[in-house]
Amino acid sequence: MKIEELTEIVNQKLDEYMEVVYPQKIFKSMKYTVMLPGKRLRPIMCIESARLFGVDINEVLPTACAIEMLHAQTLIHDDLPCMDNDDYRRGKLTNHKVFGEAIAVLAGDALLTYAPQIILKHSKKLNSETILKILSEYFQAAGAYGVIAGQVMDIEAEKLHSPYQAYDVENKYTEQDAELLHFIHLHKTSDLFKLAVRCGAIIGGASGNELNSLTEFAEKMGIAFQIADDILDETSTFDKMGKTLGKDKEAGKLTYVSLYGMDKAKSDLNKLIEECSSILNENNFNSEIFEVILNKIKAC
Amino acid sequence: MKIEELTEIVNQKLDEYMEVVYPQKIFKSMKYTVMLPGKRLRPIMCIESARLFGVDINEVLPTACAIEMLHAQTLIHDDLPCMDNDDYRRGKLTNHKVFGEAIAVLAGDALLTYAPQIILKHSKKLNSETILKILSEYFQAAGAYGVIAGQVMDIEAEKLHSPYQAYDVENKYTEQDAELLHFIHLHKTSDLFKLAVRCGAIIGGASGNELNSLTEFAEKMGIAFQIADDILDETSTFDKMGKTLGKDKEAGKLTYVSLYGMDKAKSDLNKLIEECSSILNENNFNSEIFEVILNKIKAC
Repeated sequence: MKIEELTEIVNQKLDEYMEVVYPQKIFKSMKYTVMLPGKRLRPIMCIESARLFGVDINEVLPTACAIEMLHAQTLIHDDLPCMDNDDYRRGKLTNHKVFGEAIAVLAGDALLTYAPQIILKHSKKLNSETILKILSEYFQAAGAYGVIAGQVMDIEAEKLHSPYQAYDVENKYTEQDAELLHFIHLHKTSDLFKLAVRCGAIIGGASGNELNSLTEFAEKMGIAFQIADDILDETSTFDKMGKTLGKDKEAGKLTYVSLYGMDKAKSDLNKLIEECSSILNENNFNSEIFEVILNKIKAC
Repeated sequence: MKIEELTEIVNQKLDEYMEVVYPQKIFKSMKYTVMLPGKRLRPIMCIESARLFGVDINEVLPTACAIEMLHAQTLIHDDLPCMDNDDYRRGKLTNHKVFGEAIAVLAGDALLTYAPQIILKHSKKLNSETILKILSEYFQAAGAYGVIAGQVMDIEAEKLHSPYQAYDVENKYTEQDAELLHFIHLHKTSDLFKLAVRCGAIIGGASGNELNSLTEFAEKMGIAFQIADDILDETSTFDKMGKTLGKDKEAGKLTYVSLYGMDKAKSDLNKLIEECSSILNENNFNSEIFEVILNKIKAC
């Protein structure tokens, strides 16, 4: 199966799962951000992780789509005026720009429980224990131990370091800065990648060792993805990325590039991508799709 | 058992369940609103509903406390500047006034998945099927089919009817207004009461009929509670209620009192309380605590 096919399947299922009933405004708002054109990386990683263990795609689709809904939730709230205050996302107006702040807050809230509801309603062939394991992973990743911990420290870091310009002056960055940035990336970005592959592996009945290897793979891929994102913030364009760029640099934000400089960012990115490939090879996880994703991140 | 004892047990468990770990700011913010002094009506109703079926209080406490956490979540987000913009809640500053808007949004988000995580982690004696049933009830009540539907229409109603002064002019209110207000109260208020008693009854292994009767009981109690709240908004004081009052009237908001007038509000409240008592009697649900709660609502 090609990545384009998987993307199309995920898009169709998301459209099917995101029903619009009364009161339509809230369901439309939820669906708006979920259906924005995206790479669908997280659901594809979830599906691919399950496919490594021979799982039929239909058994993993509810969970894969739920993770994309959770991702959309984080985007809606991150874009709010009281957070990053972004007007554009994936080339379109952000949720609160279309539906207003109050509805955007509520749409994000609603997605947080709509997503696991989709898992419960549509995972007909999974047994209760497996569903509970997946829900437990979901709660851990979605909450204050997961993505929210990353977002909180991202906000705190802006207060600590503003403007942040470490790489202008040699060796200015501290061990503490490096640890803080790693914590933010681990939670804000890696936690959803980890959730995706772990749920796929759990549905596939992976062994403890296999689950650990895939978790390490997803963690590294998440960090690589975030480094690529930080690089693109300085080198890409609005047309390519669909969101306002250069904001991090302008605001003097703590990023991988502002902390370590562009050269080290690029070489660390390459190193992480190679480590990801090694994990796949060592475990005989043969996946063309994972390789395609790694190459896309590398080529940022 | 007296209601004061139950309140104390719930308060102790909430304090125990609301851990504060790194990053402390978000966990402190979550705990702040959960621990504000409150009547703990919803968890007490959950416990009492389970006790009707002989359930040990320890088996229902995680679910009861989770429902109070969900309630706190709705308070944090309802109080935000982009929603009701309230500065005080239960006599203390609202969450965003203490922690800032960004953290308040995230604390609400975090509680939405922290609450069901508490159910999963601590309901040691419940089997997987029962836990999945409870989680399913939780997702339904917490999301766009539940409390959020009510909050959305509350916001929409303010746009439709502002200022709303129907009872100044005889027969001015329309069937449509009445239906809208009923929808708002059903979802914004009754849905959490229903969640509470339904979860208690499910844990107790209630029959279909018993579950339906308790659901009807909770729905009516929720409406009664909301009528009482609308009455108190015009007749009580900040010192008694711990929040800014008279705002609804000042804003010309659609409430039970503004729609039907004070006299009908009071008589409908009494009628609902009697209907609640009848449901308890007809089903031989003997509960001093439910009677105490009904009397308190009636005496608003």
